Amino acid sequence: MKHLRICFVGDSFVNGTGDPACLGWAGRICAAAQQNGHEVTYYNLGIRRQTSHEIARRWQAEVLERLPADCDGRLVFSFGVNDTVYEDGQPRVALQESLRHAREILQLARTLRPTLMVGPPPMPDDEQNQRIAWLSHQFALLCHELTIPYLDVFAPLLQVKDWNAEALANDGAHPRAGGYSALARLVQDWPAWQAWFD
Amino acid sequence: MKHLRICFVGDSFVNGTGDPACLGWAGRICAAAQQNGHEVTYYNLGIRRQTSHEIARRWQAEVLERLPADCDGRLVFSFGVNDTVYEDGQPRVALQESLRHAREILQLARTLRPTLMVGPPPMPDDEQNQRIAWLSHQFALLCHELTIPYLDVFAPLLQVKDWNAEALANDGAHPRAGGYSALARLVQDWPAWQAWFD
Repeated sequence: MKHLRICFVGDSFVNGTGDPACLGWAGRICAAAQQNGHEVTYYNLGIRRQTSHEIARRWQAEVLERLPADCDGRLVFSFGVNDTVYEDGQPRVALQESLRHAREILQLARTLRPTLMVGPPPMPDDEQNQRIAWLSHQFALLCHELTIPYLDVFAPLLQVKDWNAEALANDGAHPRAGGYSALARLVQDWPAWQAWFD
Repeated sequence: MKHLRICFVGDSFVNGTGDPACLGWAGRICAAAQQNGHEVTYYNLGIRRQTSHEIARRWQAEVLERLPADCDGRLVFSFGVNDTVYEDGQPRVALQESLRHAREILQLARTLRPTLMVGPPPMPDDEQNQRIAWLSHQFALLCHELTIPYLDVFAPLLQVKDWNAEALANDGAHPRAGGYSALARLVQDWPAWQAWFD
């Protein structure tokens, strides 16, 4: 039996901020894998408010602490929403910078460990969602170029009532258990994730 | 209402290794706090195999990434079992070195954020448990000197059948849901933890 050690690297959505179960989507899919008989060591490296710039700065040191050379380590990235937040009339990170950071992260990551990327989810804000949709599309092209499997969750989550409703009822950004469960199902049904457990 | 961001720093027992629910004791007590109506951001910084030496080296950078100055950040440490593992006829970290690392970590931590320490749990190994018991006793004295609340979990967990039985049936070290739930209850019943939510 394989024993995977998986680092989930990203922002508050990776952290699972707002989830009363303290699992988020990453914890839910790892718990499901364990309950299917797989041994998984679950390292959650999601940090609130972090943009691609901040994640690019710190991900490698944190991952290297957790994945010694002799373990079967895996990487899952998900970030981008914070880049698209407007502050003082401009995005916290401009689109071209987001793509530069993502390229820098993913190019190195794939030389270290099998790597997946999950796209940024929607916010309850139509204008910001235009920027997130475009960023997700660009991330998809980048991952295609780098042959890293990419899961667009933006479009499917727009159809999930809980995602938006829970975010609005909570803090205007983060869902609760229903939203995170819906995102977890999307990742769990993803062949690229399932292939890690074949 | 307070919104705490809590970093749990330590080893595989902090990570919750072996727990099919992917929560461990730290996730369980944060989920319980959320279900009691408190908002908690849960950052788990437990890393497998790490001794006090390795934790001393990396904890500060990881905590600073997660606790910006304007948030109500808190710190919970728990480590020591890996220090007491014998390799080549001697402990991975000698007792005096463990205490030196713990002092270095805790002295700095308490100047940054409200800090708690949970002692090392027992292993299914009587000889190692003598060293863990002694280390836990020394940690208690150190924390008393530094006025950091310390919870001895070694003695009470020796009485918990699940802790030992699950560890033996699993990988010889880490319990499953029953053991982690028992440890979670010990921390949840601890007045020093409860005081954070008054």
